Amino acid sequence: MKESPIGVFDSGVGGLTVLKALTAQLPHEDFVYLGDTARLPYGTKSPETVARYALQAAQALLEYGVKGLVIACNTASSVGLPAIRERIHDIPVIGVIEPGAEAACAASKSGHIAVIATERTIREGAYQEAIVQLRHDARVVAQPTQLFVALAEEGLHQGPIAESVARHYLAPMFRPDRSTSPDTLVLGCTHFPMLVGAIRAAVGPEVRIVDSAATTAKSARELLGRQGLARTAGEGTARFLATDSVERFARTGGRFLERPIDPAEVELVDL
Amino acid sequence: MKESPIGVFDSGVGGLTVLKALTAQLPHEDFVYLGDTARLPYGTKSPETVARYALQAAQALLEYGVKGLVIACNTASSVGLPAIRERIHDIPVIGVIEPGAEAACAASKSGHIAVIATERTIREGAYQEAIVQLRHDARVVAQPTQLFVALAEEGLHQGPIAESVARHYLAPMFRPDRSTSPDTLVLGCTHFPMLVGAIRAAVGPEVRIVDSAATTAKSARELLGRQGLARTAGEGTARFLATDSVERFARTGGRFLERPIDPAEVELVDL
Repeated sequence: MKESPIGVFDSGVGGLTVLKALTAQLPHEDFVYLGDTARLPYGTKSPETVARYALQAAQALLEYGVKGLVIACNTASSVGLPAIRERIHDIPVIGVIEPGAEAACAASKSGHIAVIATERTIREGAYQEAIVQLRHDARVVAQPTQLFVALAEEGLHQGPIAESVARHYLAPMFRPDRSTSPDTLVLGCTHFPMLVGAIRAAVGPEVRIVDSAATTAKSARELLGRQGLARTAGEGTARFLATDSVERFARTGGRFLERPIDPAEVELVDL
Repeated sequence: MKESPIGVFDSGVGGLTVLKALTAQLPHEDFVYLGDTARLPYGTKSPETVARYALQAAQALLEYGVKGLVIACNTASSVGLPAIRERIHDIPVIGVIEPGAEAACAASKSGHIAVIATERTIREGAYQEAIVQLRHDARVVAQPTQLFVALAEEGLHQGPIAESVARHYLAPMFRPDRSTSPDTLVLGCTHFPMLVGAIRAAVGPEVRIVDSAATTAKSARELLGRQGLARTAGEGTARFLATDSVERFARTGGRFLERPIDPAEVELVDL
């Protein structure tokens, strides 16, 4: 079991930012990353559809004999995690919402926290709930910023367009003339770290910006360690599965993983 | 047969711009509109996936006893039309590419024509081919403008963001210092008519902007007339089918159809 790979799942390539954090925290592990690119985006779909897709993806990864599962997609975590945990008992399953909420609560002084995410994640309210569970005095404001997904996928994550979109979404929450503004901003979608420059320009230098990639990777390391499932030697590997065009996965994925991906490294699978 | 409805298919709500043109040209007809909202966007998917989805949608509409089929999605038309026509013989099937190419050739004086569309439509080259078939002297330039889709779906189709995205994509093709520039621009995606204000600002007042909605509707009217399938009296109706959230379909669809859609008018179907 210890030698088995870890499964990582996302609706597309955004979760590669989480995979990157995982390989940094767990350099000896093998990873199987599944991006459901044929059916993305999840962020605008109904909860029933997202839960069904997430469960199919989790079951597909089980066939690779994974010893643990990371749901590296905020929308799938916010909607599908209970359904997945209900069906899959024998291996640990980690989502990105709880680690993201933890990071936010640790970063915020005032307890006034803003969350940006896809339309579906915001509507489900999972971040808002998880933050208030951890910190009862928290005051959470939430804003869907759906267009950030398309900007990141298109490679338009910096420059004047990204900056004007960021201002459009964030300026009303972080107005300098407001008596109180959030002191912390949670990037509640794995695509959003790509846009951090534009987001920073819109919210100003004081706001703490947190995302769940690093915290999720840390949680995964601790959990595997506690269960005696962590590898301690050897060089880890990563293989990629996609439900649509392997060329597009390689091309857009490279930007998120911050290293080139060869289309030959990506396998086309059907869910 | 004459009393049967006409099936209209799109990946989402964009095709409602075509439905609007169809109801104007064919006011006595009943329409069944299917938006495959669970699996949109098609524009970034592989040709095999798009063809498979388009065929599933066409077959779903056949179950409603349709007397004709309009593929109101440029991506599905450019990739899926041959596969659909191969399987469905007994009713007429119309796509939007040929009518769009006709409109472009009729509008252009110089024969220098620009096409903007989704990534997949541009890569398939169906517009470029259809234009050159109709007009051998044509010189076609093509540019994917994927972000327009998300802007239209988000309701950000006008204002400074839409304008800066339009400039980003179009300014290189329509530079005033170029000795020759296209005199005609084809909006090769049903979402794009929503952005016509921003597009006009980017290309200047001289360029003829054409889309395939009106021409497709005219083709459909002529074809039904020739085949003796057109209704000549009675008030037409429209019913809507969507593969995901009926609320979202109603909310975003209303903008494209330019009339409110009640969620109760929309039926959830699985393909």
